[in-house]
Amino acid sequence: MSPSRYTYLGPEGTFTEAALRTLPEAATRELVPMVSVPTALDAVRNGEAAAALVPIENSVEGGVTATLDELATGAPLMIYREVLLQIAFALLVRPGTRLADIKTVTGHPVAQPQVRNWLAQHLPDALWESSASNADGARLVQEGRYDAAFAGEFAAATYGLEALYTDIHDAQNAQTRFVLAGRPARPAARTGADRTSFVVWLRDNHPGALLELLQEFASRGVNLMRIESRPTGEGMGQYCFSIDCEGHITDRRVGEALMGLKRTCPKVRFLGSYPQAGVDAGVPPRPGTSDEDFVAAADWLTRCQDGRA
Amino acid sequence: MSPSRYTYLGPEGTFTEAALRTLPEAATRELVPMVSVPTALDAVRNGEAAAALVPIENSVEGGVTATLDELATGAPLMIYREVLLQIAFALLVRPGTRLADIKTVTGHPVAQPQVRNWLAQHLPDALWESSASNADGARLVQEGRYDAAFAGEFAAATYGLEALYTDIHDAQNAQTRFVLAGRPARPAARTGADRTSFVVWLRDNHPGALLELLQEFASRGVNLMRIESRPTGEGMGQYCFSIDCEGHITDRRVGEALMGLKRTCPKVRFLGSYPQAGVDAGVPPRPGTSDEDFVAAADWLTRCQDGRA
Amino acid sequence: MSPSRYTYLGPEGTFTEAALRTLPEAATRELVPMVSVPTALDAVRNGEAAAALVPIENSVEGGVTATLDELATGAPLMIYREVLLQIAFALLVRPGTRLADIKTVTGHPVAQPQVRNWLAQHLPDALWESSASNADGARLVQEGRYDAAFAGEFAAATYGLEALYTDIHDAQNAQTRFVLAGRPARPAARTGADRTSFVVWLRDNHPGALLELLQEFASRGVNLMRIESRPTGEGMGQYCFSIDCEGHITDRRVGEALMGLKRTCPKVRFLGSYPQAGVDAGVPPRPGTSDEDFVAAADWLTRCQDGRA
Amino acid sequence: MSPSRYTYLGPEGTFTEAALRTLPEAATRELVPMVSVPTALDAVRNGEAAAALVPIENSVEGGVTATLDELATGAPLMIYREVLLQIAFALLVRPGTRLADIKTVTGHPVAQPQVRNWLAQHLPDALWESSASNADGARLVQEGRYDAAFAGEFAAATYGLEALYTDIHDAQNAQTRFVLAGRPARPAARTGADRTSFVVWLRDNHPGALLELLQEFASRGVNLMRIESRPTGEGMGQYCFSIDCEGHITDRRVGEALMGLKRTCPKVRFLGSYPQAGVDAGVPPRPGTSDEDFVAAADWLTRCQDGRA
Repeated sequence: MSPSRYTYLGPEGTFTEAALRTLPEAATRELVPMVSVPTALDAVRNGEAAAALVPIENSVEGGVTATLDELATGAPLMIYREVLLQIAFALLVRPGTRLADIKTVTGHPVAQPQVRNWLAQHLPDALWESSASNADGARLVQEGRYDAAFAGEFAAATYGLEALYTDIHDAQNAQTRFVLAGRPARPAARTGADRTSFVVWLRDNHPGALLELLQEFASRGVNLMRIESRPTGEGMGQYCFSIDCEGHITDRRVGEALMGLKRTCPKVRFLGSYPQAGVDAGVPPRPGTSDEDFVAAADWLTRCQDGRA
Repeated sequence: MSPSRYTYLGPEGTFTEAALRTLPEAATRELVPMVSVPTALDAVRNGEAAAALVPIENSVEGGVTATLDELATGAPLMIYREVLLQIAFALLVRPGTRLADIKTVTGHPVAQPQVRNWLAQHLPDALWESSASNADGARLVQEGRYDAAFAGEFAAATYGLEALYTDIHDAQNAQTRFVLAGRPARPAARTGADRTSFVVWLRDNHPGALLELLQEFASRGVNLMRIESRPTGEGMGQYCFSIDCEGHITDRRVGEALMGLKRTCPKVRFLGSYPQAGVDAGVPPRPGTSDEDFVAAADWLTRCQDGRA
Repeated sequence: MSPSRYTYLGPEGTFTEAALRTLPEAATRELVPMVSVPTALDAVRNGEAAAALVPIENSVEGGVTATLDELATGAPLMIYREVLLQIAFALLVRPGTRLADIKTVTGHPVAQPQVRNWLAQHLPDALWESSASNADGARLVQEGRYDAAFAGEFAAATYGLEALYTDIHDAQNAQTRFVLAGRPARPAARTGADRTSFVVWLRDNHPGALLELLQEFASRGVNLMRIESRPTGEGMGQYCFSIDCEGHITDRRVGEALMGLKRTCPKVRFLGSYPQAGVDAGVPPRPGTSDEDFVAAADWLTRCQDGRA
Repeated sequence: MSPSRYTYLGPEGTFTEAALRTLPEAATRELVPMVSVPTALDAVRNGEAAAALVPIENSVEGGVTATLDELATGAPLMIYREVLLQIAFALLVRPGTRLADIKTVTGHPVAQPQVRNWLAQHLPDALWESSASNADGARLVQEGRYDAAFAGEFAAATYGLEALYTDIHDAQNAQTRFVLAGRPARPAARTGADRTSFVVWLRDNHPGALLELLQEFASRGVNLMRIESRPTGEGMGQYCFSIDCEGHITDRRVGEALMGLKRTCPKVRFLGSYPQAGVDAGVPPRPGTSDEDFVAAADWLTRCQDGRA
């Protein structure tokens, strides 16, 4: 293992790299771009890296299925951190290029819907062609293949370009959430404003199974933050669910809900408990669901069983 | 305390006495009839008796409210046994009385609906007057106040009467359930076919509270056997619930459900876990709700928390 | 039929008579006391009376099982009105009797727990014997059998007694609810603060059946006001449920919930919708459950089915 | 409008085209390939085509987000048909190419995970580069840019290639589901084995909202077939749900469940009811949820309201 090495979804200049650099520890790590989410995660699995930062969800485009599926299947990994990054594009050009000079633009396919309105207004006649990543698009501008690229402003320096416009984003609040995944170990410490991730497979052809799953959480006052169905690969109509809930696995209410899933579902994979990015204080637990309430109830049960209630 | 003394709802010759005598230990106890359910139970509370047998439910007439309310409020007691007794009446008369001689009949008010059809057919012109208990009715026949009394056949000897007819019961399957209550101590041992009794108070004016209560049991595969609302005495529309569920308080699924109530309801009173009368083997737990399933889930949770999942 | 005749649970001087006399129409009816709840209701069934007033629930003693069972089974009847009566006792004596003269007191058995504390404080040495009704107790005092009777103050005149003390009630808020039952016809008009009564039988051995029943109401924002289990008479552990919910059968949310029961339960008996006594304005329906919401949703469904959504 | 024109996700030779050609009516329509899902659907919206066939879900890769989002937002469209296509790839080469000659292969990015194992076994040293579509890959082989392309066998003829291998698919049961979308009109006729699609937005920050949504269906015995969360674009953590359930909007149980959503959710968009592909007979409704049960319950309610129950 190389504790000093972190991989990330490359190439250099991606939003993922920008997200990774917001982590204080990044300053002391070797940051290695990888060509895909699977290769970034495999480097962790086979011990070449200590952790990998990969995107998991965008507030406009939705879940990153490569990440969801890699974490759900294959050799287990666990999430220790999340990073939330505001997504705003810069229009990068070779130095000296003016807006009127731009005939062709490029960028990652998921960037296109996020800049479509801006393009229609400022460059209605420019031709769009997709590139493999935003950073790749910047490189192709550097090489002269396109006149301009949409990418993070931070990518300009890497590719010798300059930002003609910045802070371009059609949608308000476009954010991407990234997760730092490592090999399974003790979860991140509880902060009181945590998120717990897991994947659960339901019993086949059991109509109320999803309802029962949600009830394990609702009955214990645990809010769900995200639920995404993913095909299991075993045929049309067979799904598992990738879920985030509020709270930490060491919170009693969360632990009891997860045990409920473990008992009644054929398979549950715990993916980690970690601090919610950008949140200082968690939602206070619903009456009757705090750790103190659980401990008091367990004490009472013991007293009943011992004849001292 | 007199460990050798058991009280019961008297007077002598009641079905309660007959039920009590079905318990093997009754042979070695002093059996003391009391005038009411509260006095029978108070004798246990103040140490004059080790236990009291009282009726709690009849399959035709429903719950015995005096017993339900005494167990729900006042100094705590616990149930250690239940007895199920088939209810059939004998028509008791002074020796020599013939059917044609009977002009007046008596019995406990709850006996009347259970013999109404028989009376209409065999003694359509006889006048019914209620007595304080079936045994009391027998005594009044002995004293010559009435010509015949409906009571248990076993009461004949006590009052020097003879049974003109036996096995009288309008309803098929008329049964009464009795409970043996003692001071709170360790519950009866688990047999695998157990019943657990408790009383629960719901939060005021919380519409879904009863639904949530039932869900604590349903979600853990615990079947309810009986649920009865009782007024709390705090005003019209204020109820608590007297409930029996399948299973024993040491069954994990039952314990977790009870802890759920304890956490979320203002008050829960545990009334005991004890063998189901007349049942050899309990219903096997629903998949995912056996003790083994609970233990396995708890082990898994610990492994997740320790990074060994 | 005698539209001018109302029966009630007698004898004269009972709280039931007092409740009946609170109805304006009582002034123009012939009011006939009957010896029991079944006989009062049978007079309506066989056309001898237009309606019967009977007690259904006491805030201290709970449901009146004779009334609950008569309404649940036998020839159908329907509830058109309810009356709520504050229960307070007077201590009735023959004129001239002083407190110190009282050695024996009587009253209905359900009165005893409601005056027990008062007795312990004012007449600790008096002997209690139960009578068949509070009014009967007053009659027995008139006849000299007992020194004093607990009954409604209004019973004094009927039996030539005087009230030595009034407003006696151990429990705060002791109330009895009475219902006016008639032959089935169109329900009472909707007032906006209504109560709907019904009885429902669940499928045998279906553990979640009660939960599903409650969900039919919860999912449509209909609050339950009362739920009582009653044995069906088919054996220990077989129950039906006597239920009151808020709202009127012509409220869409109530109607849809009742249809849900009708579809999924083996038997439902509608017992009437009628104004809540002492309530001026009902609880406003939860968002999404008003009649307007139901109508708008039905319109939308029709537009979807017609391709005009 | 051009009733004779159907668009589809092109270019020519895609699986979408193959799926479209399984529809009998395709033989009499002008089939027009479009460069993207949005452009295929926009041609329907603006009247240039009568309908568009687009992929909506793959049993290995999951939902096609472009299709889900286009149907959820923008000018309304409705689904009238679905087509289920087994996905198997052919390895297409220029005539004469042998396996040993293949140094570079191409195909759509979503094809790669479905042929990865096959590649590792048969062409471990070949270099993969993605193309914009499987058909595009075939065109690039025709032009000599790559040695081989993974595509549908049917694409060979279009691009003058031949299939060196066929029936290549790592996953068993890899299927893609396509939907035929048109402008909103009366839904497809009920067949008894139908699927109903809709999108629903939940109330903000209402933890149990998803649970309540599922309960609208569970309580009426309507099985869900697919549920996918999609971001609403209003910020991280804000989702709507794209759902398919069994049954037809004219089935009473489905209609009542949809009305339940309409009443309680801020927004519901109905996307159509249409025959389930490849299914001859639907699942029989759960007892109490057939149209007959709904009609009988409505009749009973009317009788209750009219005093004729």
